Amino acid sequence: MSFNSLQDILKKASNTIPVKISIAVAEDKNVLEAIKSATNSNIISPILVGDSEKIKKILSDIKFKVNDNAIINICDSQLAVEKSVELVAERKASILMKGLVSTGELLKAVLNDKFDLKKPGLLSHLAIFESSYYHKLFGVTDAAMNIAPTLSEKVHLINNSVSIFNKLGVSVPKVAVLGPVETVNEKMGATIHAAIISSMNRRGQIKNCIVDGPLALDNAISKEAAEHKKISGEVAGNADILLAPDINSGNILYKSLNFLGGAKSAAIIVGAKVPIVLTSRSDDEKSKLMSIALAKIISE
Amino acid sequence: MSFNSLQDILKKASNTIPVKISIAVAEDKNVLEAIKSATNSNIISPILVGDSEKIKKILSDIKFKVNDNAIINICDSQLAVEKSVELVAERKASILMKGLVSTGELLKAVLNDKFDLKKPGLLSHLAIFESSYYHKLFGVTDAAMNIAPTLSEKVHLINNSVSIFNKLGVSVPKVAVLGPVETVNEKMGATIHAAIISSMNRRGQIKNCIVDGPLALDNAISKEAAEHKKISGEVAGNADILLAPDINSGNILYKSLNFLGGAKSAAIIVGAKVPIVLTSRSDDEKSKLMSIALAKIISE
Repeated sequence: MSFNSLQDILKKASNTIPVKISIAVAEDKNVLEAIKSATNSNIISPILVGDSEKIKKILSDIKFKVNDNAIINICDSQLAVEKSVELVAERKASILMKGLVSTGELLKAVLNDKFDLKKPGLLSHLAIFESSYYHKLFGVTDAAMNIAPTLSEKVHLINNSVSIFNKLGVSVPKVAVLGPVETVNEKMGATIHAAIISSMNRRGQIKNCIVDGPLALDNAISKEAAEHKKISGEVAGNADILLAPDINSGNILYKSLNFLGGAKSAAIIVGAKVPIVLTSRSDDEKSKLMSIALAKIISE
Repeated sequence: MSFNSLQDILKKASNTIPVKISIAVAEDKNVLEAIKSATNSNIISPILVGDSEKIKKILSDIKFKVNDNAIINICDSQLAVEKSVELVAERKASILMKGLVSTGELLKAVLNDKFDLKKPGLLSHLAIFESSYYHKLFGVTDAAMNIAPTLSEKVHLINNSVSIFNKLGVSVPKVAVLGPVETVNEKMGATIHAAIISSMNRRGQIKNCIVDGPLALDNAISKEAAEHKKISGEVAGNADILLAPDINSGNILYKSLNFLGGAKSAAIIVGAKVPIVLTSRSDDEKSKLMSIALAKIISE
């Protein structure tokens, strides 16, 4: 990876001309604080779509000044969402960010044909992690969007993640398809999916990456653990992307790393023509800023 | 918990009279090294059932001396397993440990009616973790045995874990039933199970514990994250036991904590009349020793 740390991503994002970010229903203190921080870091220039009175009140509270023309006053939440999405559809902004609106409502607008923002495949959540227990940045998908991805949906999750890693400078990322064990077990669907997906990759049906699975998490990220199990190959112990079996395991992995692992992370929604930033109230400040920085790098 | 750390468990296990541990098919270097360490720590006194020639060779290699009558020479693997299980059934040993035999073969013998070792319910895997990111020891179940537990099986997993926490001095443990989100979502089975199990606890159908769910992992172990989501109750941010939705997520949580979280752990199989220790080749030395120490505390 041309980026060894999230700090590298932040640095690069801060050293190029700010890009426009469109915020859907921007009257959210948490979101505006992240926007303030990213603006001050020279990463973005915001377009705040929402109830301008409420937005201005929060801006004043958090001591953040924007030009009046950076606020588009639309009090109706659905109309504000549509406008914010229209801005990215018309290339007036390069990144879309969720404000005080449900993820469902925002993505519904993104998927609306009239905006032509959807790429083939599906939308998915990708988190980029930095952990002191691993030798490089790595991705985790899908912790938040796709509940029980089918086989072909998992292929889309891989393709989405690979496209991001390509943009981050990893030309042929190594993808570990995770399971609870490293052997195929008919009773464990995750291992069946993993075996099939690995074969599809060997047959050239999944390109620009090296896929191996099933791999238990330890085999995927620890050479030593892989050797204990006599697992060879390029992915074991050196994975760039971890594909979780489903949202239960993806979400637990994401939260375990963030809350019980001391890891740092950035996350985006991939699969639309522009990166989408959905920060959660429980994400820390740093993680929100990192996500916006990542979105900028991806959008370029 | 009367134990604040795994070190406390180790200390207590070392300060009482060694208990007998029966090792099924003991000719396994890895296992014998753990046995050596636990014996030297005054925790156990081993009975090694297996091919005595092979066992003696390894003992000599690792410089570990045992009395000749501590080795029961049975070269046939299945017969050795049966003998090792018989020893615990006849109370000649208090702990059972897996050697060079598959988990399946060992548990088949444990479940054999003739030994009467099975308690009502089912066998399950429980790991006890110590993490610098959490204020107390906590349990994770089930990372290794039950693939896709049904509702009633999850109740057994809770009962098994609660019985262990009781023995560790936590009289009314707090159980978080994990899901990818903290709200009930019909499309996410884990959240449905969690909601039902919580209600069963409120109605007294699951006793000696306080159950809450669905809780995402962050809500379960971080008061701050729980407050962000406006989740109150005694479990949020203060869980003793984390019940994972299934083996995919349980295994990933277990391995994430151990391999990407710097946590320490001990693990046992619960649900039989004696604790069963199954260490994995990829567990580190400390973790194997801790598991044996935990088994001793539980067996008392």
